[in-house]
Amino acid sequence: MKILRVNMKENQIRWEPVPKDYEQLGGRALIAKLLLNEVPPACDALGPHNKLIFTPGLLGGANVATAGRLSVGAKSPLTRGAKEANAGGTGGDTLGRLAVKAVVVEDQPKGKDLFILVIDGDKAELIPAGDLRNTGTYSTSDRLQERFGADATVICIGQAGEQLMTGAGIASTGDRDQRSNHAARGGLGAVMGAKGLKAIVVDDAGTERTPLSVATDDFRTRATAFAKTVLADPRTVNMSAYGTAGVIRFVNRDTVQSMPTRNHRLGTFAAADRLSGQRIADLAPERGGKMLNCMAGCVIKCAHLFNDAHGRHLTTALEFETLSLLGSNLEIDDLDAIAEMDRLCDDIGLDTIETGNAFGVAMEAAVLPWGDWKGAIALLEEIRAGSYIGRIVGNGTETVARVFGIARVPTVKGQGLPAWEPRTLRGMGITYASSPQGADHTAGLVTARNVTDETLLKLSRQEQLVMAAVDSVGLCQFSNPVPEDMASLVNAHLGLQWTPEDVLDLGRRTIRAEIEFNRAAGFDQADDRLPAFLHTEPLDLPDGPRVFDMPYEAIDRLWDF
Amino acid sequence: MKILRVNMKENQIRWEPVPKDYEQLGGRALIAKLLLNEVPPACDALGPHNKLIFTPGLLGGANVATAGRLSVGAKSPLTRGAKEANAGGTGGDTLGRLAVKAVVVEDQPKGKDLFILVIDGDKAELIPAGDLRNTGTYSTSDRLQERFGADATVICIGQAGEQLMTGAGIASTGDRDQRSNHAARGGLGAVMGAKGLKAIVVDDAGTERTPLSVATDDFRTRATAFAKTVLADPRTVNMSAYGTAGVIRFVNRDTVQSMPTRNHRLGTFAAADRLSGQRIADLAPERGGKMLNCMAGCVIKCAHLFNDAHGRHLTTALEFETLSLLGSNLEIDDLDAIAEMDRLCDDIGLDTIETGNAFGVAMEAAVLPWGDWKGAIALLEEIRAGSYIGRIVGNGTETVARVFGIARVPTVKGQGLPAWEPRTLRGMGITYASSPQGADHTAGLVTARNVTDETLLKLSRQEQLVMAAVDSVGLCQFSNPVPEDMASLVNAHLGLQWTPEDVLDLGRRTIRAEIEFNRAAGFDQADDRLPAFLHTEPLDLPDGPRVFDMPYEAIDRLWDF
Repeated sequence: MKILRVNMKENQIRWEPVPKDYEQLGGRALIAKLLLNEVPPACDALGPHNKLIFTPGLLGGANVATAGRLSVGAKSPLTRGAKEANAGGTGGDTLGRLAVKAVVVEDQPKGKDLFILVIDGDKAELIPAGDLRNTGTYSTSDRLQERFGADATVICIGQAGEQLMTGAGIASTGDRDQRSNHAARGGLGAVMGAKGLKAIVVDDAGTERTPLSVATDDFRTRATAFAKTVLADPRTVNMSAYGTAGVIRFVNRDTVQSMPTRNHRLGTFAAADRLSGQRIADLAPERGGKMLNCMAGCVIKCAHLFNDAHGRHLTTALEFETLSLLGSNLEIDDLDAIAEMDRLCDDIGLDTIETGNAFGVAMEAAVLPWGDWKGAIALLEEIRAGSYIGRIVGNGTETVARVFGIARVPTVKGQGLPAWEPRTLRGMGITYASSPQGADHTAGLVTARNVTDETLLKLSRQEQLVMAAVDSVGLCQFSNPVPEDMASLVNAHLGLQWTPEDVLDLGRRTIRAEIEFNRAAGFDQADDRLPAFLHTEPLDLPDGPRVFDMPYEAIDRLWDF
Repeated sequence: MKILRVNMKENQIRWEPVPKDYEQLGGRALIAKLLLNEVPPACDALGPHNKLIFTPGLLGGANVATAGRLSVGAKSPLTRGAKEANAGGTGGDTLGRLAVKAVVVEDQPKGKDLFILVIDGDKAELIPAGDLRNTGTYSTSDRLQERFGADATVICIGQAGEQLMTGAGIASTGDRDQRSNHAARGGLGAVMGAKGLKAIVVDDAGTERTPLSVATDDFRTRATAFAKTVLADPRTVNMSAYGTAGVIRFVNRDTVQSMPTRNHRLGTFAAADRLSGQRIADLAPERGGKMLNCMAGCVIKCAHLFNDAHGRHLTTALEFETLSLLGSNLEIDDLDAIAEMDRLCDDIGLDTIETGNAFGVAMEAAVLPWGDWKGAIALLEEIRAGSYIGRIVGNGTETVARVFGIARVPTVKGQGLPAWEPRTLRGMGITYASSPQGADHTAGLVTARNVTDETLLKLSRQEQLVMAAVDSVGLCQFSNPVPEDMASLVNAHLGLQWTPEDVLDLGRRTIRAEIEFNRAAGFDQADDRLPAFLHTEPLDLPDGPRVFDMPYEAIDRLWDF
């Protein structure tokens, strides 16, 4: 394995051997360690001292079902702390097959130059990308695959990232022309824009697959067993049929109320059924919709390919978070309109969660009326064009709140709240408050109810450790891997003797490194807090009103163990 | 003395006796203590839990030359920490004469209602101010003085404050129709707007002057002696002739370089002489300009009344900070244009320092070209109108940087840098970094050069303690009071036995309370840092390039004594 260092100021490419310390790290774990070792925590996230890191997990390239996630990391311009976001698609497996442990993008060009990094087998170079300036991710991917081959992976930013907007994510192409995979959160697209890097093209065609130390029969047996376990899991069945949008009927119930509505004022939405995975599945036959995988070989296939009423492709991977934050949260109940907004976010290169929250605050400020999907679509085009209002909302929830003097701001550590509702699913409040990543449901999803606070604290901690490991191994969370699965696969792949406890320890070390980075960047306990309105505005549940009222003393001790 | 509590939600007025703890506090000291006791440090500065405090200094109303400053305080929406800003004018003396220790404005109206607080002798009431919505401070002051009497003091916000912009200050009328006194810094105008309070009218006409405990011959003798000392001070002579703009010739020299130019890139400005106090004084005879006092009885009279070429009033108190930050910092060299910009800032109710820095970053982002005074005037009108770009720049330097992805941000603790340059006047760097108020030259002006770092640290600390006391006693810093002066006057006025050391102790307790508030609001050492460019971009001095390179270890220990 090797590390590719790319200096954007000097236009310099350097291959480095992997230091011993990093050999057993990948994905989120490697990012945390690299940030701590190499990035000054107080630096400007959009300045020359930040580094943008692309890294597959430990299983990247090993042909394990769902194990090809691509992690992207940097100091976040949104949270101003350590950030990792990961995407499906073919990037993680392709880099893994090329034995690239990480691509570390450093410094920035003096002017406004824009480049493409082309990694072709063992060669890498920076080439000018001026002709791709101001193009969306769909068109960028199309043009680069035309030029470098349909099997090349294209990782790129849209106009939002080029304009350094802190709501910008990074797109990656997926299996079979799929364009809807995003390392969306934390404004990493703005960091890529600040590096003057429009795209990375990774091409492993014609490259001998790097022999992995132990791609043995034993490994293949274990990988097959894992895929079978995933396939047999009832959660997979539901995910394969309805995608993440399958939860909408569950979360919209009056006992759960986790369908954010009107800038998180309510937890149920009258028209929720019209946005559900079941509805999308019902429309599929007449419109030519179907379920797709994003990574080659994935057995789950949770991504809705969604066409409009005329059968024309609108978007892929229409997710619960998108449907709720761009839908119910804005009181928009038109599925086709939300799908169009999703496509625009994907193309402009915007995080749908951040954008949904930012639009919610903009509606709070009467920039546009609640439910106005035409206005919302026009506003997305303002972001693309970089108009003043486009820049305001493209820079995320807190920027909108600041500019319009809105006090009700749904963020933790500067990052917009996911749909999962802390007032009813109290474990999510623990995760949002205590994760070094800010409000992030994928950092540790805990939906248990009717258990003690003590149990919820333990569940959130355990799930956060598991997820930090999952994002370091490169697996998709939807394969629901337990530490035993990860130890078994990593051991067989890399010739190690990890126990399940070692897997959790990888998670622990990762989170501790992120917390250490954040502390040095200026974070303290005051940053580990949910927005005030979750404490003061109750949701109306059948058994009475409910706010998030768990004492922070216990949450503040979550990582003291 | 008494405290006036005004609840904006309940439309309720309550007079309270002064608690014993507060008896020997006033101005900045009282604000620090009230914030610590009553405002949750983590609260939203524009929300219901913040409190807006108006308080004269300990000498308010005592007829001591320059001792009628009015302090305004709250948790700042700009710095998000403890904030005090004070203004000249007649507010401090009038409240002092009415024996009002403080006006504490609490909570906020449910809707968008706007009120005027009228304090008339011992009576106070809230009356609707709907007819004053969206009026500038000039017109608001005119209309309220027409209604309540030409001698009433009007304290008010303009459109910036009404729109909750964090660049908004609070205006106060002064002696003889003067309208140019502002508690400008820290976005306190936005807090007033968030309270739904358009103006406070203070009328002491017909009120028996509250007998002060010891307004004795002894007191009057000391007050007269103090006034004579001030008058005899050579610094006063210069200030009376040229105002604060008198320093421009000094600071523009190549050995000082404290005339910020092109968003603080340079420290000298070719056209500086055209903006100097001497130039303003030269123009005065033909244009009808003159020097004015802002408080009744002030012997310094440092405010330029500045007319245009046709003799029409443009602005008063055209200050060094305004001339540099709205002038050289934007490469604007037209004195009349800057005076017009100053008038607009005063009328809209904007801090000229914050606005100058915000415009500098906007020019960095190519929103308008360097030197474009016509564009700058148009942009001020955009702020007044609340257009998108107006909202962006009206919300201050960091908001502009965020929205346009600009890395070069001249702020400390979220507040724009004053003109005094830390790379050459290293003591100012110490003050900016260590003051709980953020980048604020009035927190402790240290212009010594060619002394050791140790001496500079001591000077900054001493000056910060003195200034915290000065702002608590209610004196103007331009009277250059030493602790002995303050002890003598306070003792004679209030029957105390303070030593000069007690005066410094008042400053010490004030700063410690502010730091405690800030810590609880989430501040740590990472917030006590200057913007990175001051460390990396040298000014070109005759004896070589110079950055701000004092080690932070020493600055971080400034308050450990």
